[in-house]
Amino acid sequence: MNKAFSIPVLDRAAMLAVASHLDRKTKPVGSLGRLEELAIHLAGMTGSASSFKRKIVLVAAGDHGVAAQGVSAYPAEVTPQMVMNFLKGGAAINVLARHSGAKVRVVDAGVRGVPFAPHPDLMDFKIGQGTADMTLGPAMTHEQAERCLEVGRLAVERLVAEGLDMLATGDMGIGNTTASSAIAAAVLKMPVKEMTGRGTGIDATAWERKVAVIDLALSVNAPDPKDPIDILAKVGGFEIGVLAGVMLEASRRRIPIVLDGFISGAAAILAVLVNRECRHFMLASHQSVEIGHRHVLEYLGLRPYLNLDLRLGEGSGAAICFHLVDAASAILDEMETFESAGVSERE
Amino acid sequence: MNKAFSIPVLDRAAMLAVASHLDRKTKPVGSLGRLEELAIHLAGMTGSASSFKRKIVLVAAGDHGVAAQGVSAYPAEVTPQMVMNFLKGGAAINVLARHSGAKVRVVDAGVRGVPFAPHPDLMDFKIGQGTADMTLGPAMTHEQAERCLEVGRLAVERLVAEGLDMLATGDMGIGNTTASSAIAAAVLKMPVKEMTGRGTGIDATAWERKVAVIDLALSVNAPDPKDPIDILAKVGGFEIGVLAGVMLEASRRRIPIVLDGFISGAAAILAVLVNRECRHFMLASHQSVEIGHRHVLEYLGLRPYLNLDLRLGEGSGAAICFHLVDAASAILDEMETFESAGVSERE
Repeated sequence: MNKAFSIPVLDRAAMLAVASHLDRKTKPVGSLGRLEELAIHLAGMTGSASSFKRKIVLVAAGDHGVAAQGVSAYPAEVTPQMVMNFLKGGAAINVLARHSGAKVRVVDAGVRGVPFAPHPDLMDFKIGQGTADMTLGPAMTHEQAERCLEVGRLAVERLVAEGLDMLATGDMGIGNTTASSAIAAAVLKMPVKEMTGRGTGIDATAWERKVAVIDLALSVNAPDPKDPIDILAKVGGFEIGVLAGVMLEASRRRIPIVLDGFISGAAAILAVLVNRECRHFMLASHQSVEIGHRHVLEYLGLRPYLNLDLRLGEGSGAAICFHLVDAASAILDEMETFESAGVSERE
Repeated sequence: MNKAFSIPVLDRAAMLAVASHLDRKTKPVGSLGRLEELAIHLAGMTGSASSFKRKIVLVAAGDHGVAAQGVSAYPAEVTPQMVMNFLKGGAAINVLARHSGAKVRVVDAGVRGVPFAPHPDLMDFKIGQGTADMTLGPAMTHEQAERCLEVGRLAVERLVAEGLDMLATGDMGIGNTTASSAIAAAVLKMPVKEMTGRGTGIDATAWERKVAVIDLALSVNAPDPKDPIDILAKVGGFEIGVLAGVMLEASRRRIPIVLDGFISGAAAILAVLVNRECRHFMLASHQSVEIGHRHVLEYLGLRPYLNLDLRLGEGSGAAICFHLVDAASAILDEMETFESAGVSERE
């Protein structure tokens, strides 16, 4: 697996070339701040100063056995209903992706129920009928956890065949903030209550129950905090594991990854445990309202671009962040230099 | 003047209608966070849930006598050169505005030199040949300060005739962070050194000089911290005063205003001193690297949307923020409801 997931380093020469090009533009050096850093970072990822026309939001969907413990404000049937909504184009992520010139592709990683009817935007990779209830034992088998990473790899392979310059990660799965909090608490070795938020909008009583459920799942399963497959199998989710696989494969192919919120963050910390180098291909679009997300971003060493107090998932924040990527590319491609515009340089 | 600048209140009925519409969309209630708040706020401003197709970045330009004190890394000739760059379409603001579907219009509020050749994107309102050096006395006369507000009003009037749904404020003027720091220190009654940043990128020695220059200007002029015209006349700038007038007139016409960085912020605190109600028509696009901006935003009660470490001005951050406004409008207009999508609601 390590060999398959060998990840390149950032291309320093491409980064220097872009940095030096930006310094010729008609603006004080560095005055576009993180927009310039973004252009430089992206060049390091891809090895060139290319633009990112073919953007895709990959939404991985899966169900969670732990939803039976009353950890969500919504019934589990919402997972397949929202997948249908994604395929019909009516969900928030469809609107936001359309608005930022991106396509939406959905991976059924393990939604409970019969397979969805074939659809050009859907990849049917159902790894199981939802996970098992992690308060009673592992959420999935070790083999299923490894299959998650493989499905992520296959999904990226398909998207690349379709044409892919940049990827955003999204998720759908009733109960998946519970699994994400469990993963984050295990990896970051922090108290569950500091990693657990209100998810889709539960009240204080339900939140206390959610914390107790996660504590129980961690004590029943005792995942090894250094072993990403063990953590994924014991307290993870199919869509989370698939996203981790997506991140590893995209990094291997030098495709920039725009992370969405807390669930993408949980997947990212698993991916980083598999291979630390993938972190360099990740951007943090926003910081979620989910309280654990801040700690996850600190662990990843990523700083968010947007202050939007989002807590939807689906890739919503990442899709919005595509605009910033395009802005950074446009600055690089379209701005005049001091010479071409006849503007005096600093004294 | 108070009557001319009478500003309407936010339309509560329109806000409630949008809030209730958003709650029918297929997402947990409130899960799109500030994107939803933005849609609601914009409805309150305009009185309807309209979209914002006709967006304009108004860039006010002016020179500063205080530039002779060596407070900037760039020579004063850069101000007219950059105005030409704006009119030719090669500056950062042109690129960013184009990318967010907005037009750029430039107001010559007081650039030193002969008038610019007529151009369809330029409004020639030269109030003076740059301001006077504020370390030696007032930057402008009381009449010129009042003329700034009037020019702002006239500029908005012209833009409305052209078609205007939303406005971003931008600035150009070598020396204008110096004037802005002076204004902010006067109004917020804070030490100059806590309000003064590196501007276009001066070194530590030049920064100390800049602080001393501002301290001197404030002690020479002793502006009345409650009188916006007095502050503008004594330590302001033509483009800053024009932007304040623009904000007041746009508010009066229920046109949302997206503020850029520190210079826009200095203009906003003057506008708020003229009429507090205009604050409700302002959005803060980003928080600048200029250290005073944070305090200005706190004073205005505004929270930025973008973490981009910008310090360019021109309206650059505001133009990027237009994407978020469009995203909020698209969510409202294009997302399916629970009923239309057949998705179950919360239990």
